[in-house]
Parts: sequence; structure tokens; C-alpha cells
Amino acid sequence: MKLAFQKETLLNGINIVSKAIPSKTTMNILECILIDASSNEIRLTGNDMELGIETKVEGSILEKGKLALEAKIFSDIIRKLPDSDADVSITSDDRYNTTIECDNAIFKIQGRDPQEFSYLPFIEKNEYICISQFSLKEAVRQTIFSTAPNDSNKMMGGELVEVKDNILKVVSLDGHRISIRNILLKHNYENQKIIIPGKTLSEISKILSGDNEKEVQIYFSKNHILFEFEDTKVISRLIEGEYFKIDHMLSSDYKTHIKVNKKVFMDHIDRAMIMIRDNDRKPIILKIEENNVNMKIRSSFGSMNANVAAQKTGDDITIAFNPKFLLDALRVIDDEEADIYMMNPKSPCFIKDDAGNYIYLILPVNFIDED
Amino acid sequence: MKLAFQKETLLNGINIVSKAIPSKTTMNILECILIDASSNEIRLTGNDMELGIETKVEGSILEKGKLALEAKIFSDIIRKLPDSDADVSITSDDRYNTTIECDNAIFKIQGRDPQEFSYLPFIEKNEYICISQFSLKEAVRQTIFSTAPNDSNKMMGGELVEVKDNILKVVSLDGHRISIRNILLKHNYENQKIIIPGKTLSEISKILSGDNEKEVQIYFSKNHILFEFEDTKVISRLIEGEYFKIDHMLSSDYKTHIKVNKKVFMDHIDRAMIMIRDNDRKPIILKIEENNVNMKIRSSFGSMNANVAAQKTGDDITIAFNPKFLLDALRVIDDEEADIYMMNPKSPCFIKDDAGNYIYLILPVNFIDED
Repeated sequence: MKLAFQKETLLNGINIVSKAIPSKTTMNILECILIDASSNEIRLTGNDMELGIETKVEGSILEKGKLALEAKIFSDIIRKLPDSDADVSITSDDRYNTTIECDNAIFKIQGRDPQEFSYLPFIEKNEYICISQFSLKEAVRQTIFSTAPNDSNKMMGGELVEVKDNILKVVSLDGHRISIRNILLKHNYENQKIIIPGKTLSEISKILSGDNEKEVQIYFSKNHILFEFEDTKVISRLIEGEYFKIDHMLSSDYKTHIKVNKKVFMDHIDRAMIMIRDNDRKPIILKIEENNVNMKIRSSFGSMNANVAAQKTGDDITIAFNPKFLLDALRVIDDEEADIYMMNPKSPCFIKDDAGNYIYLILPVNFIDED
Repeated sequence: MKLAFQKETLLNGINIVSKAIPSKTTMNILECILIDASSNEIRLTGNDMELGIETKVEGSILEKGKLALEAKIFSDIIRKLPDSDADVSITSDDRYNTTIECDNAIFKIQGRDPQEFSYLPFIEKNEYICISQFSLKEAVRQTIFSTAPNDSNKMMGGELVEVKDNILKVVSLDGHRISIRNILLKHNYENQKIIIPGKTLSEISKILSGDNEKEVQIYFSKNHILFEFEDTKVISRLIEGEYFKIDHMLSSDYKTHIKVNKKVFMDHIDRAMIMIRDNDRKPIILKIEENNVNMKIRSSFGSMNANVAAQKTGDDITIAFNPKFLLDALRVIDDEEADIYMMNPKSPCFIKDDAGNYIYLILPVNFIDED
């Protein structure tokens, strides 16, 4: 095989497929990137058996062939090549002895037999939906934090993706909170309900450009999902089973509603968290009276106390939360003001907008009000 | 005690003295910053018994007093206060219950008895030298990398600082290499020869502004050194004993001299280091013939080979080095071209300039030339 590339083009392709390379594995071949130039185009592939990424890279095929190269050393070499206009050439012989050359730097490394490499599964392109790169990237950012990847319940490490007519709903939960985002699609689609591993979503969101004009096609099969955009394909296994039923938790009843300036509210929570270290997990207590939210936290390190103006309707209430959970949800709301709905100190609070774009449900925690 | 500050002024002072706060200690009081407002100015002090830093902070003294506060929580609180024009007020009662207040955020933390805090030793200001902040900061950067802080020989963790007339000489060595910088002072001073702990030098270089117009006064006593600049004093213990004799190693004899473009040479070494991982420490072999340096490295991961043009005088030579040691020295040379002097494959090479500002000595390593 003999190929020639521009450094930046090749490096970009390597960076994309590297997102599917596992950092630790017992199967060495999974740590490799497959270079497939057996037809008239050059494709790079990374595949950890759960998640596979393939991308097309512009380059010249001087001699067709296939080759697997260990991803880390391949990426290190290309990244450190001179930023010159000179081509990067990659040559391999029939024993996969590989030479990478640019300007006068010559690297020789041992490649691997491409036959050992597992190809990505074939997905029939029947049912699909279309969404902008921006919307998908945002939906992941706005929900991924409430998955629980290390939980014994594998379902909590994934996100529910549900298509109903022209609405794409994304849900994640970790036992203490639920995050829901609804995205309006341009067309109506057949209904779908699948669970995607959180890792797939977080890796794909790193590759997506976030451009509102560029689209992603998403194809569904029984066990897999395929994302196609620009020159890249991302294929992931799905998590099998039935996702948690959450509808009965999403009551719209409330007894207290406050509207607060999001930034001011967040800054105080952030300050309160100074008092939390290691195992000393103390809640932040919100005492809502009239048009004021008194926020306080008390730990073995000391205490913080602050007041925030709020527009309140309904009853006064004193309720406590894990401050990190409040902060995680508020951080991904792009509105200037946050609407928080509460029922009583034992029932979840809801942070949601009127348009129904998002719902963040957070369970309160027990507290002892010392004052 | 009751004090008022501007947030940024106070934070700047905390950041300076925090450089002397140890990250792990069994003596809790060492993790504290002393606030001393018992006279007409406010001074912050951090002291880990080896290194002590004191700095003056502008602020209003509404009620005189002293207080020790745990550095991490103090710094976290001040850093996260609102960036408003409002004053930060610090109040403590006679049991060191402390209140920090800004805008409407109120923090309460437990302070410590300032009597427990160890004051900085008193240094008589007899003998001293004067140097620009820039020169001192640079001299540390250009030599600190070849100290060996974890060596059983404590001397290798320090740097020799020698004053002779109007020359300040800084030396560090770790058994494989020696770094020497000579700095021209504006005046002649009494001769001095001391060994400063590497940690002191690296912490002080983080505080120095690097301004060429601003000066540092350095005072010497038998066991301590005192650096004074702007509103800050840094006091450090010295390492006792006699530093290594290095003069006999600094022969100016050589059989091969090359002049190479520093950046091109460094970039190739950097690329060669891709082939080195974990315990597979392989040398870079330089084969110098005519006006060419052939650089190559070979490890279990593969090989790299490159050629660099050089101006050579003297004999051809093949010699090998730990590539990291070459890179460390070249990185701190600000010249565009590097002059390297070699005797034979068993004797150290010297990277040095004609003016005598710097000498970097590096021991070669054994190698097997497979070609």
C-alpha cells in the first residue's frame, strides 16, 4: 500500500476515529486504526466493538491496500510531523512493515494484519431521522451529566431517545434526578424508542461541529444506531431492554413557583460548594419566603449564607438539595431566568420552561434546620 | 480584628503567600495563612518551615488584630466572591470565629490562634546583591530542570548560587548533566557561595513578575536567604554542606564542533521521543559526518531517522544521548543556533555560547549501532 496525504487532513481523520479507540483493552487490535484504501477512496476506522467510527480522508492512492496501525503511535507521529506543505507518505509491504515519511523525517513502525480488524456492522438504511449537528450536540450536553455510567443498572449509563411525530425526546436519569430535552424536528417521522450508551453520545458530541446548517442522518436497526454526517459514520450498539417509566413522576402540580436570575443563583450555589469537601456532603437549604430565597449551607468547615431576590407565587417553603445537582441543571439552561416549581420538602422540584423544551427533576434531600 | 479589602488586591496577596503552603502536612497550622494587622499595615504570611513568604496587602484596618486561616478555604472563598466593587470584609472575634462578607454572601469559618503560627526568621540585612526580576526568573527556568529533588543526595535537589565580583553563577546537576548560567550584575559584590533548595527557586520564580525594570534584593545569612521585591519577602533555609566540585569537568577541549538550527534539531528529537514509552528508554544516536547530522532512534515500537544540516569543524563522530536531556537544555537556550562540542563517544558534550552565558554539559550513553 502506498498513500499520500496533507498532514492536517490526515490528522483530522485520525482524531475523529480515535474517539472509538479504547484506552485500555486486552485485545491489541482494538487499539488500532484501520486504513482501508482497497477501493478508490481512503477510509479510517476505529472500533471498540460497542462503538465504531469510520471517516473518509482525502489523499492519493498510489498503491491500493489495507493496514492496521496502533492508534496512539500513528497519531503521535502524524501530529509531530513538520507543518510543511510536503506530503505525508505512508507505505507498507506485505508483512505490514510500515514507513511514514514527511520532509526528511522517516518513521518505521510495525503495522498489523487488517484481517484481524473487526468491520463495522452493516445497518440497513430504512428508518431514519434528520437533525442539525447543533441540536444533537446541545441535547447531549444538556442531558449527559445525569447518566450514571458506573451504576450496576446498565440502563442508567444510557439515554432514552424517543421519536414521536416531529419531536425528538432525550431522557437521562441517575436515581436522584431526571433530565429531559425535547427537540422539534423539521419533519414527521415514524415512532422510535431506543436506549443509546452514554459513551456513544459523549464521543459523538466531541466530533459534531455544532453547526446549525449541517445535518446528521440517524438510522435505526434492532440492535444498532448509525449516525451519518459529512464524511463520517458512527455506529453504536444499543442498550437492550425497557427504559424506566418516568411519566408518573412528571406531575405538573406545584405549590411554590419561583423565578430567579440564573447567574446570581448559580454563583451562590458555587460559593456554597466551597464548604463541601470529600465525604462531608452537606445540602444547600433554600428558605423561600416572600420574594426572597435565603440560601445556606453548613459543614464542618464553616457556613455560607446568602439572599437572592425571586418572583414567587404560592406558598413559602424550606427545602434542601445536593448543590451539585442544582448547579448541573442550571448550567445547561440557556435562559437568563430559571423557573423552579416545588410541591413540598419531600417531593422533587422541577426546573422547566413554559415552552416545554426542557424539564429537570431533582429529588430534595433531608436536612436539619438549625436556626 | 476587622479588615476591609478590594477582592483583587486580597486575592493577589493570598496567591503569593500560598506558594509557601505545603500541600500535605501533619502540622495543620502550616496549612494556614497568617493575617497580621496588629500594626498599621496588613501582612499575609505562609510558612512551611523551609520556605516562608510574607507580603503586604493594601486594605483598611477597622480594628487591629491577628488571625490564622486555613489557606485553601480562605483562597477558595475570596476567589469565588462576586467581582463587584463592594469591599470584602473580614471580621474575627477573640475565639477566632471569622466572618467573611461581600455583597450579600456571608461565610463563617473557624480561624486559628495566630500564636501557633511560626514567624519567619529574622535576617540581618548586611550582605546583599541586587538583580532584576527578569534575570532571576530566567536563571531559574534555565537551570531548574537538571536538579534531582528526589535524590538521596539532598545537594542535588538544590542549586549552587555563587557571586564573584559582578557575576552571579547558578549551577544545577543531577548526575547525568550539569546546567550553568552566568548573569552579569550591575555592581561588584562580596563573594558568596550558597546552596538554595530547588523548591524555593521554583516557587519564587512563579511570584516574580519577570519585569526587567523591577529589582530583587537578595540578602544572605549563614543558614538563610532573603529575597525582597515590591511588597514581598521570601525567606528560605539553605542547604548546608559543600557543593559538588565541577570545575575539573568543564574542559574546553573538543574534537568536534557543530552548529545547528536549534528549532529543526529540537523538532526531530521531539519526534524521536514518540518511540520511547515507559521503560523502553532508548538513546538517540547522532552520526555526524561532513555537514550533516544523522539522527536515529530504534525501540520496540519502531524507528525514526532524520538528517539535519550542520556546520561542522573537526572530526566525524557517532555519539548517543538520552533525547530528553538534549531537549531540556536546547529548550532554554534563546539563541537561534546551538553550538555543540564533543570529544569522543564516552565524554560529555557541551552546549555553550561564545559569550560564556551558559554551559550545558550532558553525559552520553552507550549504544549499539545496528547499521
